[in-house]
Amino acid sequence: MKEEVKVWNILVADHLHPTLLQLQDSLPVVFDVKPEITSEETLRIAAKYQGIILRSKFRFGRELFEAAVNLNFLGRGGAGLDGIDLDVAREKNIEVINAPEGNANAVAEHTLGMLLSLIHNLHKASLEVMDFKWLREENRGVELKDLVVGILGYGNMGKAFGEVVKLLSKETIAYDVDPSVRANGGVRLVDFETLKKRVEVLSVHIPLNEENRFLLDSRYFSGFKKLKFLINTARGKVLDLDAAELLLKNEEFRGLGLDVLPIEDFNRLGSDQKIQYERLFHHPKVLVTPHIAGWSIQSFEGISRALSLKIKNYILQNG
Amino acid sequence: MKEEVKVWNILVADHLHPTLLQLQDSLPVVFDVKPEITSEETLRIAAKYQGIILRSKFRFGRELFEAAVNLNFLGRGGAGLDGIDLDVAREKNIEVINAPEGNANAVAEHTLGMLLSLIHNLHKASLEVMDFKWLREENRGVELKDLVVGILGYGNMGKAFGEVVKLLSKETIAYDVDPSVRANGGVRLVDFETLKKRVEVLSVHIPLNEENRFLLDSRYFSGFKKLKFLINTARGKVLDLDAAELLLKNEEFRGLGLDVLPIEDFNRLGSDQKIQYERLFHHPKVLVTPHIAGWSIQSFEGISRALSLKIKNYILQNG
Repeated sequence: MKEEVKVWNILVADHLHPTLLQLQDSLPVVFDVKPEITSEETLRIAAKYQGIILRSKFRFGRELFEAAVNLNFLGRGGAGLDGIDLDVAREKNIEVINAPEGNANAVAEHTLGMLLSLIHNLHKASLEVMDFKWLREENRGVELKDLVVGILGYGNMGKAFGEVVKLLSKETIAYDVDPSVRANGGVRLVDFETLKKRVEVLSVHIPLNEENRFLLDSRYFSGFKKLKFLINTARGKVLDLDAAELLLKNEEFRGLGLDVLPIEDFNRLGSDQKIQYERLFHHPKVLVTPHIAGWSIQSFEGISRALSLKIKNYILQNG
Repeated sequence: MKEEVKVWNILVADHLHPTLLQLQDSLPVVFDVKPEITSEETLRIAAKYQGIILRSKFRFGRELFEAAVNLNFLGRGGAGLDGIDLDVAREKNIEVINAPEGNANAVAEHTLGMLLSLIHNLHKASLEVMDFKWLREENRGVELKDLVVGILGYGNMGKAFGEVVKLLSKETIAYDVDPSVRANGGVRLVDFETLKKRVEVLSVHIPLNEENRFLLDSRYFSGFKKLKFLINTARGKVLDLDAAELLLKNEEFRGLGLDVLPIEDFNRLGSDQKIQYERLFHHPKVLVTPHIAGWSIQSFEGISRALSLKIKNYILQNG
């Protein structure tokens, strides 16, 4: 009796670089590419698929997991897993596959760019020039070569940023809550007390999970005695914006860079939140970019390539 | 008979960090600090001084040299000597002392920041966020790690920028018109043809002199086949803005960073020039900063320190 080859039906529920689809040349997979599909539509057809691949446009929670009765794996085009209910995935023994390798360098370059823009007043001074104000003395910067940089969260993104910023800063140190994390060349791992005491620049690279939700609040920052610059390219919900605004009131504090916000869909903002956003976006010490730190032409393909390799390995082991 | 000690009367005609004044502790110098002095006032009192120190607020031309009948040296707080008539200085055997070492790192960091801002759309996307537009796909960047960077003019500033950008780019090459200039680690010196053929990013670090006046015009750029980004932190009058606007019309060309302009005193702009500036300042591919690339808190003191050391040596040798 001939053994039936298992076919993997995979739903691509978001925009991913087509390099991913090359998997069908070497493996028994059939892709259903529906980049515009909504969460409701996915719920209706989820039962058809052994694999679903998405980025972050909708949350993959219990209801979707319950509907996806044939699901073996969930692929995430990117690094953060905060849009996926990992407890339910574990409970249902569904493999979650992400691809932080694909955009770590893009995050590192973006973060360094935000930092240099803040310390040398690039965005602020450019806005003035647009108003035909040519202000030199008012825009003296400070040099990165004299600043101590701290990296909070020393995973894929923290390490990638460390690799570049260590070359330009006075010193780069890092702290990770996970004691098994190891240092690599040029960046020293320190305890939290040392981080707080020493850093002048803090760059945030922690994931969003229950422990980290609004972890960075006013109390948290009270120990950071020398903090002058803060950059968050991780997730908006790890940083309390009221605490960020308190920092801005301090004359010693010189720059806040945000690539992420607690709520990034502006239609869902309450009126107080909208006023706060307005205030932040126009603050002379603030630079806000629209969640594009991992977002480059290279990373679009890089994420697809990294994800595709991992899915291939998974299928070969579980086919 | 007692030999009379020569006293050096030195006019400080601009804002310089007070570390310069420490020279009077160890040498027979008397400083006359008049940071607000005009060119006309300087003309009236110039005959009193053996040394005059300035930055760039007024041109030091023949008339001033003729008036300064006792002048031995002219100190320049900064790098560029385009504000000084060097032919007259030579003719009158007056030593011209500048201090490019004081702000080379500030220029390097500023230039890298402009480049990262352009390639990752930091300024452009921030402006959109200020209008409550959160555009991600429209703001995918390109990564510096995949770009070939070219440095035009491999002097103090070019070398300092090369030192940092070589660490992050795919490759960094440099061209200098002076054949005696030598390469240093990681940056390869190439001929002009190679520069034109290969560079995707061009950073300008040439001085303004008669040969370089508007050197970078449309004809000059016609050979740069792969040019995507152009940054000028040197002098505004080395780059023809009509040529820059032609580059911007090319879809392949993605970003122009200007820290200097042909005319930086906006009151002296003609109406056509003002319209052109307006167009450039608001162009989505353009970032303009107000001649602050060498302008950091550290460089303010650094320039004074470097200059003061050189003046000290000069006085010790000529006192």
